Amino acid sequence: MTIEQQHTQGWLQSVRWNSLEDHLDLLDQRRLPEDIVYLQLTTSEQVWDAIKQLAVRGAPAIGIAAAFGVYLGVRKFSGSREALLAEIIRQCDYLATSRPTAVNLFWALDRMKARAQALLGGTAEPVGVDAVKQALLDEARAIQAEDEETCRLIGEHALSLFEDGMGVLTHCNAGGLATARYGTATAPMYLAKEKGMSLKVFADETRPVLQGARLTAFELQQAGIDVTLICDNMAGAVMSKGWIQAVIVGTDRVAANGDVANKIGTYSVAVLAKAHGIPFYVACPMSTIDLNTPTGADIPIEERHEDEITQGFGKRTAPQGVKVYNPAFDVTPNEYVTAIITEKGIIRAPYAENLKKLFA
Amino acid sequence: MTIEQQHTQGWLQSVRWNSLEDHLDLLDQRRLPEDIVYLQLTTSEQVWDAIKQLAVRGAPAIGIAAAFGVYLGVRKFSGSREALLAEIIRQCDYLATSRPTAVNLFWALDRMKARAQALLGGTAEPVGVDAVKQALLDEARAIQAEDEETCRLIGEHALSLFEDGMGVLTHCNAGGLATARYGTATAPMYLAKEKGMSLKVFADETRPVLQGARLTAFELQQAGIDVTLICDNMAGAVMSKGWIQAVIVGTDRVAANGDVANKIGTYSVAVLAKAHGIPFYVACPMSTIDLNTPTGADIPIEERHEDEITQGFGKRTAPQGVKVYNPAFDVTPNEYVTAIITEKGIIRAPYAENLKKLFA
Repeated sequence: MTIEQQHTQGWLQSVRWNSLEDHLDLLDQRRLPEDIVYLQLTTSEQVWDAIKQLAVRGAPAIGIAAAFGVYLGVRKFSGSREALLAEIIRQCDYLATSRPTAVNLFWALDRMKARAQALLGGTAEPVGVDAVKQALLDEARAIQAEDEETCRLIGEHALSLFEDGMGVLTHCNAGGLATARYGTATAPMYLAKEKGMSLKVFADETRPVLQGARLTAFELQQAGIDVTLICDNMAGAVMSKGWIQAVIVGTDRVAANGDVANKIGTYSVAVLAKAHGIPFYVACPMSTIDLNTPTGADIPIEERHEDEITQGFGKRTAPQGVKVYNPAFDVTPNEYVTAIITEKGIIRAPYAENLKKLFA
Repeated sequence: MTIEQQHTQGWLQSVRWNSLEDHLDLLDQRRLPEDIVYLQLTTSEQVWDAIKQLAVRGAPAIGIAAAFGVYLGVRKFSGSREALLAEIIRQCDYLATSRPTAVNLFWALDRMKARAQALLGGTAEPVGVDAVKQALLDEARAIQAEDEETCRLIGEHALSLFEDGMGVLTHCNAGGLATARYGTATAPMYLAKEKGMSLKVFADETRPVLQGARLTAFELQQAGIDVTLICDNMAGAVMSKGWIQAVIVGTDRVAANGDVANKIGTYSVAVLAKAHGIPFYVACPMSTIDLNTPTGADIPIEERHEDEITQGFGKRTAPQGVKVYNPAFDVTPNEYVTAIITEKGIIRAPYAENLKKLFA
């Protein structure tokens, strides 16, 4: 499918291998929602820059872009099998420096390295240099395809909890733009659309960085999904009007007891949902559940620069020198979580027990 | 006290009669928090413009400015007593057109008219033209002084509920800038400062128009009060940390049953406060309580232009054509209201009964 065909279908893929022209098309998320521009990347240096400069964001999407970056880094290589292995490792180590805290980045690059080592690290039947290059491209495509399948499965499970005509509120962007396709929290919205079901989505704008306004509202609108943008402080008002039958959000980490860390404001939405008797769902791949983190209290909460709040829109909107508290995430205790929805199914309380079972 | 002396004391008066130079000094609130600029108004036309163009905002402050505007409109008048009365009425009718929905504006102008009519409408001992002008200036000053006293009394009552060292969260700007002095929700914060008590204030930025960031954080910072600015969606997180012992907000209208209409997001804050066992106080003058409005459901909620959300600060932050819901206010049901604090004292549930008693 070409990018033009995807556009026609309202699908904006964040990372896309262009096999006709042998380059990577990368949606420049910095320019959303104003401009839909795909960067055409032909070198690993360009991929490194695109990750560093936030043209691509969302942990799965970053990992996918980096995996293609490894291929771009060696596709013009000529030399021995030993030299190729060294070069692949060098490219992976280089790409890993683009965003030092993105776990999916390291995971994807490790997987590319492992593939190369399997093919080049003294196999009985040596594989040629060109075949290894092709295998790297295939591996990157596999990482992307698996992420899409994971998101689709999350969407299928989530959709089993939804009904036609329901109002659904989401916070931040756990969307298709952050993954290969479908997103996590947005996956049931896309699948509902595919199946002809109608959901009425409300997207919190998500201050300070406005991922809900800039990304979620944008990608759902592109897909022809019924979406209404609200300010974060309007979530309670729309719930009290009876417009919301479910809340669904993504997460950055789920602790072993089911506590959920996600974008700041998620906790407030969870409390409001409970007060209105609205189920609060968390959608995530299994890889986001960390049994080594006992509770939410063990999840470090990053505090970000005050400028995001005091001059987030390019214009100063708060007095100079004012004290600011700007946590990037908050923790929603497990008692507010109606269910956690993964590619392997729906998990409910007691989470400590049921999450452990899921991994057993 | 000169404006410079007020600045030294951290007090920024929104409307101030400059008796030395015989003009009105008006703080241009459009330029806050970046610039502290006082407009020097010498004519009623300038006052009309200042109200129309939102240089002054907040219902009490608008009423005060308009009252001084009546004096400015006639201070150079020469002619008969009859002609003066006609001119005062003309000036009042003219100033009333500056902001057609501000109730305090009409109230203040009616009071100026009534004063003129009492002095000019055929009294036994006719008062001279110059004495009437002086009486109008005195009346405007009285309106301002009474508003300050009302706010101070609200502050005294509110402060009786607070303790040294408490964390207090507020939403929007029910501050000194909107009134003669002290504000309503902010009154206990100023009085605490005067009395040497220390409160730790958290100000919600209050999307979409950011009155909390631009005005509340600004005026409290000017006064040397400990204030921390947060995004609206962080209120739940700071409550869960145990940093907040009370919430206090202003209101646009209190219904006869104690339901409270206030800036959008107030309801969410009230729900969060209840979930955390934090008292939720509403501060307002008696004039804001409307026994003719039976419940919150009878209060019309203004919906404002989508641009406030999609391009609030000169920069587009949401996709073109996206659906937006932008209510300016919400209603907090009386069961979330711990107490309503007026100049006449503290009212608690059952509100229907106790509000009626208050007015009896």
